[in-house]
Amino acid sequence: MTYCVAARLDAGLVFLSDSRTNAGVDQISVFRKMTVFERPGERVMVLMTSGNLAISQAVLHALVRQHEVGGETIWNAPDLFEATRCVGAAVREVYHREAPALHEQGVEFNVSLIFGGQIGNEGCRLFQVYAAGNFIEASQECPYFQIGEAKYGKPILDRVLRPDTSLDEAAKCALISMDSTLRSNISVGLPLDLLVYDTGALRVTHFASIDERNEYFRMIRGTWGERLRQVFAEIPDPLWTNPDDPGSLVPPSRVHQPLRVDPADAPAPDSYPNPQVLAQDPGKDQAN
Amino acid sequence: MTYCVAARLDAGLVFLSDSRTNAGVDQISVFRKMTVFERPGERVMVLMTSGNLAISQAVLHALVRQHEVGGETIWNAPDLFEATRCVGAAVREVYHREAPALHEQGVEFNVSLIFGGQIGNEGCRLFQVYAAGNFIEASQECPYFQIGEAKYGKPILDRVLRPDTSLDEAAKCALISMDSTLRSNISVGLPLDLLVYDTGALRVTHFASIDERNEYFRMIRGTWGERLRQVFAEIPDPLWTNPDDPGSLVPPSRVHQPLRVDPADAPAPDSYPNPQVLAQDPGKDQAN
Repeated sequence: MTYCVAARLDAGLVFLSDSRTNAGVDQISVFRKMTVFERPGERVMVLMTSGNLAISQAVLHALVRQHEVGGETIWNAPDLFEATRCVGAAVREVYHREAPALHEQGVEFNVSLIFGGQIGNEGCRLFQVYAAGNFIEASQECPYFQIGEAKYGKPILDRVLRPDTSLDEAAKCALISMDSTLRSNISVGLPLDLLVYDTGALRVTHFASIDERNEYFRMIRGTWGERLRQVFAEIPDPLWTNPDDPGSLVPPSRVHQPLRVDPADAPAPDSYPNPQVLAQDPGKDQAN
Repeated sequence: MTYCVAARLDAGLVFLSDSRTNAGVDQISVFRKMTVFERPGERVMVLMTSGNLAISQAVLHALVRQHEVGGETIWNAPDLFEATRCVGAAVREVYHREAPALHEQGVEFNVSLIFGGQIGNEGCRLFQVYAAGNFIEASQECPYFQIGEAKYGKPILDRVLRPDTSLDEAAKCALISMDSTLRSNISVGLPLDLLVYDTGALRVTHFASIDERNEYFRMIRGTWGERLRQVFAEIPDPLWTNPDDPGSLVPPSRVHQPLRVDPADAPAPDSYPNPQVLAQDPGKDQAN
């Protein structure tokens, strides 16, 4: 499995990827999933891949060799939309070559990519490319994309990321999102590749390869969990016992009842200790 | 979709379920997924279901009618393990009756259940029952089960729930877990059924049906997100600029480089503005 996340902010772009691949749980390796295409002063593009590793590597290979067949490549595309079409074309090329043989063996053509960067004077752009080679672009309303094991790390992104989030804050948010994922899915693993790009720089601004010895990531892992538990403790526990308090879980003047299956449907066993309490059953579904 | 979570703690049991079902996104209904089987003073059992709604309802129906064929039922089972076998038997009965017809139409036999409670003097027990009718029991190390859309809400459970967590704290934790899920997946929806059971009570201790007007849940939704953003802001941003600080993201005396694809592989386009910067490329993969 894999987890990659990228955000497009007013200030630039943030990319974060893990490096674990697995075939089952008994065959685990480290493969880096982030590749940088940079011609300093002219264009910076970052590709992250998820899915079948053989397909991901074949797509990267096809992309790198695209100039051999002539026509547009990511190196001469006039803008990032056109460059993303080149990525999509590489996916389709691999599909046509590989999918029939994979299909014969019941293997799905499974690949998903995030591609973003800046070309010349155009603003930063970020795309998610699907296995069919089609793609979507990040927007103000949806400033981030995830591929791979996305769900564990999504809530913190939804709560924190806005287009005006700073690059450092977005990098911190991505690392927390990764931490939640690492804790819940052993098929996502260190080291991480973290890349930050300042709008207009036209070269990689910051890059870090983060392993288990990285002090900043260790601080995030420790502090976030601890502070989360602290906030959790500070939120009041539910009040059950005071039906006159409008803040209690069961508001005044309402009786809540679960759906019940009446034991009277079943024959009472010999051991039934106290049959008369049945009559005290307050009823079924009154409040619903 | 569905999200249900239950925890078995030293103090008792907590169950929480949503009530949304959907066939695609254009056919959404409210169905409650928690059912209580209670004979006060003798046994309390709670069943939550996820998966194909027709199968869930058929399993519940089979379970309720089990006494008609004689033998053991959840009402006369001597302990919760045996009662869970009755639930598994109901799943298998429905499988044998329904699966061939579903299979013909390409519909998977998809159902997943959480079943827990207390019978007599035995302690509280909690089980997860699979579509094959087999099941596993919660333990000290893994005190909770989730069914349905489990991933968004798992990180907070992993960080907070311990066997000695109080029932009120566990209820709060389940509600926060549900909040994260509600925000990220529109196929999970209000109202919620929340049930709390005190060990030894042998009747339902607390029950609340929680809709969008519930003040406690509104407080949780508002406060949790707000405090999370506050904690997030308090955690230091990454330090990139001071390579002499051991707490910086890129530790001293190490150069981190991403995987790069060299633009020299590709023919330089006519528009290439500044070819000589290529020579300044610091190299590939030094640190890896």
